[in-house]
Formats: sequence, structure tokens, C-alpha cells
Amino acid sequence: MQITILGGAGFLGARLAARLAQAGHLGDRAITGLTLFDLALPKAPQGAAFPIRCLAGDIADPTSVAAAIPQGTGLVVHLAAVVSAAAEADFDLGLRVNLHGTLAVLAACRALRTPPRVVFTSSVASFGGGQDVVLADDARQLPGNSYGAQKAMGELLLQDASRRGMLDAVSLRLPTVIVRPGRPNKAASSFVSSILREPLLGLQTSLPVPESFGVWICSPNRAIDWFLHAAAMDTGPLGIDRGINPPGLRVTAGQMLAALEAVGGPAARALVRAEPDAAIAAIVGGWPAEFAATRARRLGFSQQEDVETLLRAFIAEDLAATKAERGL
Amino acid sequence: MQITILGGAGFLGARLAARLAQAGHLGDRAITGLTLFDLALPKAPQGAAFPIRCLAGDIADPTSVAAAIPQGTGLVVHLAAVVSAAAEADFDLGLRVNLHGTLAVLAACRALRTPPRVVFTSSVASFGGGQDVVLADDARQLPGNSYGAQKAMGELLLQDASRRGMLDAVSLRLPTVIVRPGRPNKAASSFVSSILREPLLGLQTSLPVPESFGVWICSPNRAIDWFLHAAAMDTGPLGIDRGINPPGLRVTAGQMLAALEAVGGPAARALVRAEPDAAIAAIVGGWPAEFAATRARRLGFSQQEDVETLLRAFIAEDLAATKAERGL
Repeated sequence: MQITILGGAGFLGARLAARLAQAGHLGDRAITGLTLFDLALPKAPQGAAFPIRCLAGDIADPTSVAAAIPQGTGLVVHLAAVVSAAAEADFDLGLRVNLHGTLAVLAACRALRTPPRVVFTSSVASFGGGQDVVLADDARQLPGNSYGAQKAMGELLLQDASRRGMLDAVSLRLPTVIVRPGRPNKAASSFVSSILREPLLGLQTSLPVPESFGVWICSPNRAIDWFLHAAAMDTGPLGIDRGINPPGLRVTAGQMLAALEAVGGPAARALVRAEPDAAIAAIVGGWPAEFAATRARRLGFSQQEDVETLLRAFIAEDLAATKAERGL
Repeated sequence: MQITILGGAGFLGARLAARLAQAGHLGDRAITGLTLFDLALPKAPQGAAFPIRCLAGDIADPTSVAAAIPQGTGLVVHLAAVVSAAAEADFDLGLRVNLHGTLAVLAACRALRTPPRVVFTSSVASFGGGQDVVLADDARQLPGNSYGAQKAMGELLLQDASRRGMLDAVSLRLPTVIVRPGRPNKAASSFVSSILREPLLGLQTSLPVPESFGVWICSPNRAIDWFLHAAAMDTGPLGIDRGINPPGLRVTAGQMLAALEAVGGPAARALVRAEPDAAIAAIVGGWPAEFAATRARRLGFSQQEDVETLLRAFIAEDLAATKAERGL
């Protein structure tokens, strides 16, 4: 089976590529080739038993995308996106990448003789909600940000294309992924990773929301597991509804800090200071904090592990590289 | 106030243009000019006290659309669309007109110094539902057809653009509009108008569904009233949610036939024969048959009149022209 990862240089794309290289197969099918496509030239993971092509290109350019999805491709994992803060700052860029990019993916898939499975990353940002609501599986997407609107449009496009047999899509509305490696950024959600990552690096950081603030999270490893399940699952039971709210975890900031203390000790916990920020609290307070995710569980998507387990995995897998990257 | 109607040669566009020409104002604002734009050159209505420009062009061509929405335009009524049967038959045409057309409208509106009101016609076809459900105002749009998917994408785009202040949109999910003048066509919903129009023309027609079949309808005049209300209303109370389910009417086929008999006599009713068609019943059976429409009523959208009233209006306003057009 031939696979393409669009956004293959990104945080999740590179991690998925490494997992595929290691596994050598997807479900019970051997992987015969992998294409990694991104704006910046992706790096091929080590140790794959199959050939890996790395391509740099623009996701909104149909010719580049067609080159990344050659005849015989059985799976396209479409992670290429302009994320929330960037799509909010530059409407045209977000529309170009998140909408026209997905249109280019559809066009490339339609040129294949056999319609491929497409795993699309949508987002909880495509919902409203707020702190006190548990969103049902049939909750409406009423996004309060351009990123979420563009992702919801992409879902509609791929859902309709699936109904028509042009491709076979599964859209995963990913929770906030923690712990992200790297550094704090200007995203309103940056603190959700920072309050765990920075103390483990020995650095101070601030908590802009009350400890009671709830957020719907998943770990990078869980996201990869969901991608792999979505890539290999029987899509028959989905019918025309191709959008999945996978079983993330609602945790409060306080619970995250307790897990930090359990794993990193009181000294790590002490590096996080409360610094209420009304602007950030207002933005993130409108995000959905919990989903029922009943359908996803029934469809075999695995449950997010607890925060302590997630933190120990970050320490084992990502902490050293993050330290090196940041010169710590 | 300067107004543009995109789709100005269509059934509803021409009727709206005539109403505006007659009224001379919108709410308490005088109309200073009207542009009618369509693929086929629209005809200007008679008797307007303001200048009317008629333009032929492609809604998916940004240059043509920009010419139709000149600086100073305060209201754009965007009715240009490829309808359900055509969008299902030709996916690319539907996407081009219904999605890229709406993108071109957004681009043209962003070029205006003052963001215009945009009244967008979406459709009940953007929902699933079925016969036994009353859809709440926050029901999810999970379309089972390309037309509905493209309309829902357009709604998301215009909702986000409204939130960003690029324009000020109201999207009306129109019910099945009856009685359409003209002739029966291949749309699965064609019978909903045909069972009323054809007998009034003295022609036989068939009913492909049981008399218990329910459908969510509105009259052409009610649709125009809703357009005018959406054009002049205060959009502040809408918040980010720019989609409106206006207060149509759920009627059964049996109730329509009873109204036909009341208005046209038993001879008219006798021209409709039951000819069950499982294929048509399967398609239309998945459409939503009723909406709560609570929010629209609170926002001042007027209630659809009963079928007898609607039929008498058709006879008074459209029957003679329909006879002439069809050589009867």
C-alpha cells in the first residue's frame, strides 16, 4: 500500500511517518511506499523497509499536490494546515491553505483509478461550546474562528465527495494536542502545553486561566493511534457522516498541575505561577471542553490516557530533543 | 441605497426585482440603483423610479462579480446557484457556481469601503432529517446531496466573513418553494409544485408519494418577504450565527390536495393520480419535513400562510403567464 502524508514535516506528520517506517505495515497491509509533502522539505524517517519520497510544495497548488498523490496511492493523510492563530491573523492565507488546499487534495484523489482513504484532521475549534457543555456526537459546528470555519468547510467537501465515491474520508476533530515539543507561541492555547513542558525544562511559566478551567486534550501518541485507526477502519458504518469526535480527555488546569507535581515533583509545580489574563480566558473559554465521543468509542477509537501517563511519555520520548533544540 | 441581485434572471430574483421597483425603498431607505446579474441577461422590471443595470456574467468569475457589485453597494442578494438536481448531476458545475461563486461574492464585497448586507439563499437540503423529526434551530447540517453541502459551505464562509466584519450576512435556508410557475422538471421535488399547478392548468399529473408525506414549504411571496426582512433587519442579535430557518409550513400531500379541491374544485383534484414511485419517495423521504423556526419568529420573520391562500395568490399572479408561456 502506498501512502501520502500532506504536512509531513509537521509535528504530527513527522511522528506518523516515523511510526509507519517502524511498523512497515498498516493494519494487515504492507506499506510499499511513502510520500511526505510539506511547504518545507520533510525529512525521511530512519529505518523504513520501503522507499520514501520527500517533496516540498504548496498545498494549494493542484499540480504540486497531484505529484504528491501518485496513481496507486491507497491512503492520504491530510494534515497540511494553517493553524488557528495564523488563520485568524491572515484570512486569505487560511482560506488558501485550509480550503483551497483541501480542494486540491480532492482533485488529486479524483484522478486516482481507485478512490483512496483520506484521513483529514479537523479540529474542536470548529465547534462552539464553552466550559459547561458536553457536546453530543451530533452537535452543530458553529465556529468562532476562521480556522474552525475552514476546517468545517473541508469536512463538508470531503463528506460529500465520500458519498459520491470520489474518495473515502474520515475527518477527525482533534482535541488540543499536549505536550507539544518546541517553545511557547502566541496561540491562545499555548499555555496548555507550556504549563507542563516548561517546568520539565526547568523554566518558569504562567497559567492565564483559573485552575478550574477545563480543556479537551489528547497526546501526540493518541492522535497517531487515531490516524492509524481511521486509515484502516471499515468506513461502512459511518454512512454519510464522516466527522468523528475522538475520545479525548477533559482535564482541568488544576489536574494538569497535579499530574506535573506527581511526575516532576513539587519543584516543577512551583515553576507555574497564576497570572490571570482576561483576554486569553475569554478566547479559550468559548472552546468546547468536553465531548461525549460515544460514536468514536463504538467505532473502535481508543481512549486518551491520563495526564500522568502522557507526561511520562513526553519525558521519555521528547524531553531530550526539546532541550537540545532550545539549547538547554 | 444601491442594491445588487445575483441570480436576477431567476424565478425569485426577478420577482424580488419587481417588488423593489414597485416599492422604491427598502425599510426606510430609498433605493438609488439596482443591478441585476445572471448568466442570461436579466430583464429590468417596469416602473422603477431608480436606474437599473442588467449584466450577464459568470458568478464564478471574480471580475464579472466585482463589476456587478460596484462601490457604494449596500445590499447584495445572492441567489445565483446551481440547484439540487443539477449539482447532483454535475459535481464540478455545482462546486464552481455554489462554492467558487460565493467566494467571488465575498471577494467583491471585501473591495467595498463599507461592508454590505448580504442575503444568501441556503436551503433545507443542507439538512438531513426525515419525515418524523422537527428540526431545532441548532440542528446540525449533514447534507445528503452536493447542493446542500455546497450551500452549507457557503454559510460557513459568510458567517466567518461576517464575524470578521468583511460583510454582514444573513443566510436563509429556504423551504421548498411552491407553486413554481413553468413546467414539471426532473427534480425529485418537482411534484410538490406539479400537483397544484398542473391541475389548475387543466392537466393531469401524478403523486409519487403517499398522501401522508410531509414537506416544508413556502410561497414565492413569503420568500420575497423574508429576503426583504433579512435585508433590513438588525443583525446584532444574530451574533456569529448567521443561518436562519425561516417559518415555513409543514404540509402533507393530502393537505395540498384538499386545498386544491377547495380552490379549484373536485375536477382539479381528480386530475392528480396516485402513482407511487419508490425512487422519488426514497429521495424526498430523507429531507427535513419540519423545523421549529423559533429563532426566526423571534427575529421577526413572518409566518408562511396556508396552502389555500398560497394557491389563490398563484392563480391571481402567475396562472395566466404560465398558461401563455406553455401555450395553453
